[in-house]
Amino acid sequence: MHRPIGLFDSGFGGLTVMTELAKLLPYENLIYLGDTAHVPYGNKSPATVLQYAIDNASFLMSKNIKLLIIPCHTACSHALKTLQELLSIPVIGVIQPGLALVQPKNRIAILATTSTIESGVYQSEILKHNPKAQIFPVSCPLFVPLIEEGFSNHPCAQLVANTYLQPLKNKVDAALLACTHYPLLRPVIQAALGAEVDLIEPAELCAQQAKELLAKSQLLNPQKNRPTYEFYASDDPEKFRQYGKLFFGLEIEKVEKNKNS
Amino acid sequence: MHRPIGLFDSGFGGLTVMTELAKLLPYENLIYLGDTAHVPYGNKSPATVLQYAIDNASFLMSKNIKLLIIPCHTACSHALKTLQELLSIPVIGVIQPGLALVQPKNRIAILATTSTIESGVYQSEILKHNPKAQIFPVSCPLFVPLIEEGFSNHPCAQLVANTYLQPLKNKVDAALLACTHYPLLRPVIQAALGAEVDLIEPAELCAQQAKELLAKSQLLNPQKNRPTYEFYASDDPEKFRQYGKLFFGLEIEKVEKNKNS
Repeated sequence: MHRPIGLFDSGFGGLTVMTELAKLLPYENLIYLGDTAHVPYGNKSPATVLQYAIDNASFLMSKNIKLLIIPCHTACSHALKTLQELLSIPVIGVIQPGLALVQPKNRIAILATTSTIESGVYQSEILKHNPKAQIFPVSCPLFVPLIEEGFSNHPCAQLVANTYLQPLKNKVDAALLACTHYPLLRPVIQAALGAEVDLIEPAELCAQQAKELLAKSQLLNPQKNRPTYEFYASDDPEKFRQYGKLFFGLEIEKVEKNKNS
Repeated sequence: MHRPIGLFDSGFGGLTVMTELAKLLPYENLIYLGDTAHVPYGNKSPATVLQYAIDNASFLMSKNIKLLIIPCHTACSHALKTLQELLSIPVIGVIQPGLALVQPKNRIAILATTSTIESGVYQSEILKHNPKAQIFPVSCPLFVPLIEEGFSNHPCAQLVANTYLQPLKNKVDAALLACTHYPLLRPVIQAALGAEVDLIEPAELCAQQAKELLAKSQLLNPQKNRPTYEFYASDDPEKFRQYGKLFFGLEIEKVEKNKNS
């Protein structure tokens, strides 16, 4: 029960989901792996992303995790099902929470990396539940570098968002932010799409689903101690420590290099 | 003598150097490896870039190359010396040609990826030859994604270039484009720095140095046949084929996946 929950992402983005988990499950031990030696995933092929995801999951399994959470939409698009079949522990991602939140809407934009959009996962899942939905998938490949290079509040971010999104203005009711980085561009995305459009992000519901799953499986940690948070990166641990705290919201004391990458 | 020349880069950028080689050495067989499973290198650590470079060089050595050219400034910054020591064949990069071209100038901007700038290689090499040089190193991490996502002619590219470069306006005589992608942003960089600044790119001189080295070592291919150009990528070969031709300028018939990555 005191076994940790594992999370992996291509970089820092998934730390926003870890923040929600830490809030909602304050006694759970957490282990995060940022695959920074291979970042970004969004422009890699499905086969390559799957291989990286399997390597990351193997590393976390060696840490004896009780639940794997994949807070990366690109990795979920290409690897969630395979990992659910391969692993002996439950595996959850950010796709189902995202879908649950957009279901009531009929005109839905999906904003994501090129790789996520090309997977077609969101498009087909939404149509399964709502065959009348009008879906507008938009790859936004520059959003992640803009955010990672500190341009979220630069006029350039608005220009890029307008280029990607203005064709959708007055055409959608909701936009799913199907990349963990995108909430950091919320004001810019809102301005490009119009104030009436709901911007949907699945981090909080993902954490909620993790809590429910652990409770149902009687896997919650009964010990009410201060939990341990471990961080690993496949590239420079010190750089991860410095940048990671911007996404995690808390100080990151120590990051180790993940050995089997 | 008919053994091929090998080149590797993190992605497509090095194809611009391959184009110069094909012009200058029209009878040489060439093999290019794009390490697209790990692109970009510019935000990776020195140790990780070195490891990727060694893997790439090993692959090309297995193809029996007679000369290795590294047309990637980040890889040169972290791996050129080691590969020159490790390999039994000559290895050349883009640093020396770049330095040769900027030497007459006194106030020099170096525009490069974060990783190249942090290596300090250009700064220390310039000062070795010209201790009076005033050097202005500038990381331009958004240039590569802007180019790769087709925003080279978008107003956003000018905005970003102005943000990076306007502090240097009227302060430099020359700017070394120390990343194989940057020549594609030449008009934008020129506008940000001012028309009087020399923009220096080493691709052509790198090809010239390769020719001289082969001639001196009597390694030029004596056969005057149409050469073969082989292409490998560590991620999706078809994507490489499609995008690669934009950089290479010629049709790329076939790309294979590099097996030992």
